Amino acid sequence: MKLYDCATAPSPRRVRVFMAEKGIEIETLQVDLSSGEQFSEAYKAINPLSEVPLLQLDDGTTISQVNAICRYLEELYPENPLHGRTPLERALVESANNQAMMNGFMAGAEALRNSVPGMKNRAMPGPHNYPQIPALAERGLQRIDNYFSDLDAHFESNQYMVNDYFSVADISILVFIDFAKWVKKRIPEDHKNLARWYAEVGQRPSVKA
Amino acid sequence: MKLYDCATAPSPRRVRVFMAEKGIEIETLQVDLSSGEQFSEAYKAINPLSEVPLLQLDDGTTISQVNAICRYLEELYPENPLHGRTPLERALVESANNQAMMNGFMAGAEALRNSVPGMKNRAMPGPHNYPQIPALAERGLQRIDNYFSDLDAHFESNQYMVNDYFSVADISILVFIDFAKWVKKRIPEDHKNLARWYAEVGQRPSVKA
Repeated sequence: MKLYDCATAPSPRRVRVFMAEKGIEIETLQVDLSSGEQFSEAYKAINPLSEVPLLQLDDGTTISQVNAICRYLEELYPENPLHGRTPLERALVESANNQAMMNGFMAGAEALRNSVPGMKNRAMPGPHNYPQIPALAERGLQRIDNYFSDLDAHFESNQYMVNDYFSVADISILVFIDFAKWVKKRIPEDHKNLARWYAEVGQRPSVKA
Repeated sequence: MKLYDCATAPSPRRVRVFMAEKGIEIETLQVDLSSGEQFSEAYKAINPLSEVPLLQLDDGTTISQVNAICRYLEELYPENPLHGRTPLERALVESANNQAMMNGFMAGAEALRNSVPGMKNRAMPGPHNYPQIPALAERGLQRIDNYFSDLDAHFESNQYMVNDYFSVADISILVFIDFAKWVKKRIPEDHKNLARWYAEVGQRPSVKA
């Protein structure tokens, strides 16, 4: 089993932090997104979606998408579950993680991909090219502001994304917040609850992954 | 346990088809999205996200997001699993279902919400208002075309989204294809594989849900 990774990219970092939390070590191969290696014929033969992360099993089977990879690894390494310990907790983690994707990562990707010169026709990840839409970059920045506020309100009465249980949803939010720095968005000074959560989670050794 | 639903909307339909496949019957309450009932104080007190579907447990706990609701119901009613029967199958279903959301539903929502006059400041679902971006409506339509092509290529050598196993990913695609009709996108005539899959899946009694 091996993981196709890119050490500087936010999506594979979600998998790396997840593995670090669980003490999972597997072979990792770097795909150089900065030079466009994901579009090379060699990599497209492995992942036609031209994305990382990708998990490749020993028989060649591939699993794409962060959530799918983390769920698969959790089944193989069930100790210290990060997707929830009860049916209800698992549902709440799933819900929070979905929202982190839609309201966090998507917003950050909108802001970044629709503004930087190096991504001119890469407004969306994946195999298809789309031109940038400047208004969408602006909207992405607004959405990050709104999500920061929503998170701050949430952490007023919750230690983590789901009550007092650290989960994949917290990993997603952590990686999103660091990703938001790429578009110059940082936790606003008056968001004390979010800042408290970020400082606490930031002390976990896994965040260095 | 009760489900807040809207009989005409695509997202809650994913839950309804899922329940029909598994023979789950629970109390269902209609939220009239056409008159904006999701923004009423009464409904916001139940779901601050102003969205359907929402599952409310007998103790008042709420579960939002289609995937979270379906996973919770699957844990309660494990017979005839629709999220996969093995770790690998579950990962592949998760991956396909994630892509259906990003490349299907999001594209349809972009096309619809950024173009119809009745959604002027509702370019995104959820509690925050965003103005429409006409270029994003256009891009949504292009993305639907590309996803139709990707699905057609997939069904050339697969009976369902994950090999010969009918799953939540197939339910998502089915509901997406019907949703795409709202923005006048239909399976192109030359997409024989996708049409074959759609005709086959369309014969399941659950699709009427």
